[in-house]
Amino acid sequence: MRDVAIIGCGMTKFGELWDKSIRDIFVEASLKAIADAGVDHIDSMWVGNMTAGLFVGQEHIGALMADYLGVAPIPTVRVESACASGGMALRAGFIEVASGMSDIVLVGGVEKMWDGADVTYALSTASDQEYEVYHGVTFPGLYAMIARAHMHRYGTTREQLAQVAVKNHKNGALNPNAQFQREIKVEAVLNSTMVADPLTLLDCSPVTDGAAAAILCPLAAAKRYADVPVRILASAAATDSLALHQRGDITSLRAVKVSAENAFKQANLGPERIDLAEVHDCFTIAEICVIEELGFVEKGKGGEFTEKGYTALDGKIPINPSGGLKAKGHPVGATGVAQVVEVVEQLRGQAGKRQVKGAKVGLTQNMGGSGASSVVHILGVV
Amino acid sequence: MRDVAIIGCGMTKFGELWDKSIRDIFVEASLKAIADAGVDHIDSMWVGNMTAGLFVGQEHIGALMADYLGVAPIPTVRVESACASGGMALRAGFIEVASGMSDIVLVGGVEKMWDGADVTYALSTASDQEYEVYHGVTFPGLYAMIARAHMHRYGTTREQLAQVAVKNHKNGALNPNAQFQREIKVEAVLNSTMVADPLTLLDCSPVTDGAAAAILCPLAAAKRYADVPVRILASAAATDSLALHQRGDITSLRAVKVSAENAFKQANLGPERIDLAEVHDCFTIAEICVIEELGFVEKGKGGEFTEKGYTALDGKIPINPSGGLKAKGHPVGATGVAQVVEVVEQLRGQAGKRQVKGAKVGLTQNMGGSGASSVVHILGVV
Repeated sequence: MRDVAIIGCGMTKFGELWDKSIRDIFVEASLKAIADAGVDHIDSMWVGNMTAGLFVGQEHIGALMADYLGVAPIPTVRVESACASGGMALRAGFIEVASGMSDIVLVGGVEKMWDGADVTYALSTASDQEYEVYHGVTFPGLYAMIARAHMHRYGTTREQLAQVAVKNHKNGALNPNAQFQREIKVEAVLNSTMVADPLTLLDCSPVTDGAAAAILCPLAAAKRYADVPVRILASAAATDSLALHQRGDITSLRAVKVSAENAFKQANLGPERIDLAEVHDCFTIAEICVIEELGFVEKGKGGEFTEKGYTALDGKIPINPSGGLKAKGHPVGATGVAQVVEVVEQLRGQAGKRQVKGAKVGLTQNMGGSGASSVVHILGVV
Repeated sequence: MRDVAIIGCGMTKFGELWDKSIRDIFVEASLKAIADAGVDHIDSMWVGNMTAGLFVGQEHIGALMADYLGVAPIPTVRVESACASGGMALRAGFIEVASGMSDIVLVGGVEKMWDGADVTYALSTASDQEYEVYHGVTFPGLYAMIARAHMHRYGTTREQLAQVAVKNHKNGALNPNAQFQREIKVEAVLNSTMVADPLTLLDCSPVTDGAAAAILCPLAAAKRYADVPVRILASAAATDSLALHQRGDITSLRAVKVSAENAFKQANLGPERIDLAEVHDCFTIAEICVIEELGFVEKGKGGEFTEKGYTALDGKIPINPSGGLKAKGHPVGATGVAQVVEVVEQLRGQAGKRQVKGAKVGLTQNMGGSGASSVVHILGVV
């Protein structure tokens, strides 16, 4: 397999983009990535998108985006793994460049969620339709059950959950592309509207429009395009049962654990070598479970770890310097690619006020459903 | 890149499968393919599916199928390019094995279309939502426009279109997995209900439930599993404008032409070397246009070529020996994989009454929308 590098990336502002269509925002992010990389053509494209079929009545997103970006007839395919669609698109693009099939590959992610569809229903199709959705449970409810189990088993507190949101809003306030650029306090989280006990509105990531893109090429050619090529040291994905009730332990996210273990093995390094990570904080409890499965902290200690400030921008292991899904926003199919955009900017030293000093190795973890899909990438400039 | 072989395949019967769910049929086809290959594990899986989100309210099909097939936590991702989803899943699996990332990869395709959704709306999301669907045109209308233009420009006759359906039903009558296993006459096609002038009901492929699967591995290891490994000689995809009005000539299918040219180049052979082909006859006119773009016949002569019997089972180049989408059925996300199942059976000499004698090289062509996506595979036992 050839070594693969990221030589350019770009994203739209995340938020309520009422005056732009899904094709507009995909093209905007892609053109930024193309300009950033300085490439004059693309050989192939993979588009991460969860459910434009339900959000905007449009499938066949791959060919549509190739057409509007002006790159048809190149091969372009959509990849879907619910909210992990973006990360899975990157994995597909990585494999294509590694294989030698194509040299310059664009990986994009896009979602338009504010265009009028029933968002809660559309998102619920990522859980088990016959056993979960049918009985009325939606994602806040599923993650609330995980949170309650985690609190019961490990003594995680309500305040510790809230600290995740507080920390990510603090980071988001430093990110000009974030949907929410203001800080919040623990009390605000605790007192916001209850969504699914114990999760309140401010424990939940928002509904977001947005797109992100990255350009890949063989590492051997990367210096032609980028001053600081970012090498993809690992790309690993894993799956688990869609339905929570089919798992042995709902506080464990097996797909996250397996994808992380395989990624660390590929990269031949361990969690102690990671300088920062963008992880899938769709709900505050998700970030706590994920940092445990990634090995940044012992199982069950994620809440305490967060409370002590170890995941803050100046902590032991900065988690979600971008603001995460919670503050940067969560356009579901774009999220996995946007995580990569943040890590690339951090490794290049271009992250402005939220720069993690001396960052050389970063990790992204992107999740689908209540943890049935997970994909981990490790990126480095070492 | 490593050479890649298909070492096993399987499919469900195609038709109205009222007593089975989408997960049932995917697992059924996959278990057949696994048993056929004789493998004891799978490293990775790609699932072609067009729009389970709209058909059965279920996205995140990759992880769901990994779970129900009992292969989680392996990486599993859904691939979507409208009706070309199955072929694109095969391309993704091919690239993964070729890259060296995984050794044993299952490629499946599945669609459940009879479960109560608005099928015409769901399919229409493969065309341009903002410029075509919004104005009320659906796929029979789009292909009817292509047919009228082809008749006007090249003198293709109504009867020649009907001959495609007659020939494919004749083949389907020999296929125990086909949705329609009976022959029809030209008069029946001409006199069936008008759908979109000039296309009548019997010019259109049906609504179908079904699944298909194939197991890939490196060619170097294939002899361990298969007496007759089928080598993937080429895998090429291409795109075009989603909307018909944005193309220079609606009788030409550029994505088909480009994907075919690239596939022939990869395989280092030309159309004259192909012993049989499974092509995307979603409507009778589609088969005529596609065989022209594939180079089996000069542009504009596809109707006459069909009328003369050159595409029949005992003709110069048998097209759709399985019965094609028209008679075998068209479960949209499964079709591209089912085409491969047919070609593998033909090359192994296992196609029973529809066996093309001495077949050594076969081609599959799978299309999305009104031609905005196309993917061509060339398979051989040479």
